[in-house]
Amino acid sequence: MAASISSDVKLLGFRASPFVNRAQFALNLKSVNYEFIVEDTDNKSELLLKSNPVHKKVPVLIHGDKPVNESLVIVQYIDETWSDGPSILPESPYDRAIARFWAAYIDDKLFGSIMKWLTDAKDEESKAAVLEKFSESLGLLEEAFVKSSHGKGFFGGENPGYLDIALGCHLGWLKVVEMDAKVKLLDETKTPALAEWSHRIQSHEAVKGTLPEPDELLSAL
Amino acid sequence: MAASISSDVKLLGFRASPFVNRAQFALNLKSVNYEFIVEDTDNKSELLLKSNPVHKKVPVLIHGDKPVNESLVIVQYIDETWSDGPSILPESPYDRAIARFWAAYIDDKLFGSIMKWLTDAKDEESKAAVLEKFSESLGLLEEAFVKSSHGKGFFGGENPGYLDIALGCHLGWLKVVEMDAKVKLLDETKTPALAEWSHRIQSHEAVKGTLPEPDELLSAL
Repeated sequence: MAASISSDVKLLGFRASPFVNRAQFALNLKSVNYEFIVEDTDNKSELLLKSNPVHKKVPVLIHGDKPVNESLVIVQYIDETWSDGPSILPESPYDRAIARFWAAYIDDKLFGSIMKWLTDAKDEESKAAVLEKFSESLGLLEEAFVKSSHGKGFFGGENPGYLDIALGCHLGWLKVVEMDAKVKLLDETKTPALAEWSHRIQSHEAVKGTLPEPDELLSAL
Repeated sequence: MAASISSDVKLLGFRASPFVNRAQFALNLKSVNYEFIVEDTDNKSELLLKSNPVHKKVPVLIHGDKPVNESLVIVQYIDETWSDGPSILPESPYDRAIARFWAAYIDDKLFGSIMKWLTDAKDEESKAAVLEKFSESLGLLEEAFVKSSHGKGFFGGENPGYLDIALGCHLGWLKVVEMDAKVKLLDETKTPALAEWSHRIQSHEAVKGTLPEPDELLSAL
């Protein structure tokens, strides 16, 4: 598909942020060209402060002169604005509700566990507790994948959709935790469908090259 | 407008939950008849546990045999399913993004402050800190109202929409805090537009009689 002419699209962020990657995946899926403006968290730009005065956080999508904040809001905005590209949200209201439910779950529970591992879990007991939470969350997401994908390759069916983007963006940091914990979180035995999906989504053209490798993420810590 | 025939719609919840009220407002706005099934938080029903096995929380909307969880997901589901009724989300993708952004803000910051007041803020210093947060949040929401309402009566313009529902459901507990703190949070001087809006939304037919009064809420504590 030819890329849309969208030189008026800017994305403020940095590569190590899964939420920025999420916006990137959505733009890539829709073949929207955009200018990536790298933000320094220690020295936030005037453009960022003006565009997201409430949270002062990336990602910010600026379309024309209009800023959109919060990664899942951005993904929905992209889906609704470039509606001629492949659909990101499912079509039926019920499937959309299921996708929105799990996207919120991912950011609350799964990303919560990633943050806990990286910042709080220092002793063996708290590490074990976080790993237990990962196991619970990924088990539930395995079930959600099986139900949503209808035997096809992605949560969205034959093509990546909302949940592929919502979960896929966390795979880089999940690998960092796996390396650090020396355990396999996405496990061929316990979460076989998700383990296979994770290879599939990472080699998809909308994700490949955009999702940072663990080395790059570690250097951002 | 005649009520839709929707005897297959059930809402699991209890009146003191603002998130349950939110789903009720949306159903009322769309004139959808529903069965309200009262849940006891100390003794959750099998239907609730089966319908929301992940969070085990109300509200749950059951449409036919399909459960939908999480209040903002439910409101969007209602908007998309009964699409012949008045629109809840705005029409343009940008206005929808703005509405989704502020709805998330309301549940994070404003409801966060309500919870802090009710559970954590015991000494004068922490009470003052929470009141300061209320002032900040309501100031931002006043600005958002002025921008979104375009001089009309509601966030949604002439009729209540997504943010009217999202914020309106918290007005009962906000009154409880006002009574307890002996301060006016929605203040005619500091937040004149929101103060006026709060009277308008509470007397709207979709909200009136559904939003509990402070006495009823206090007895639920």
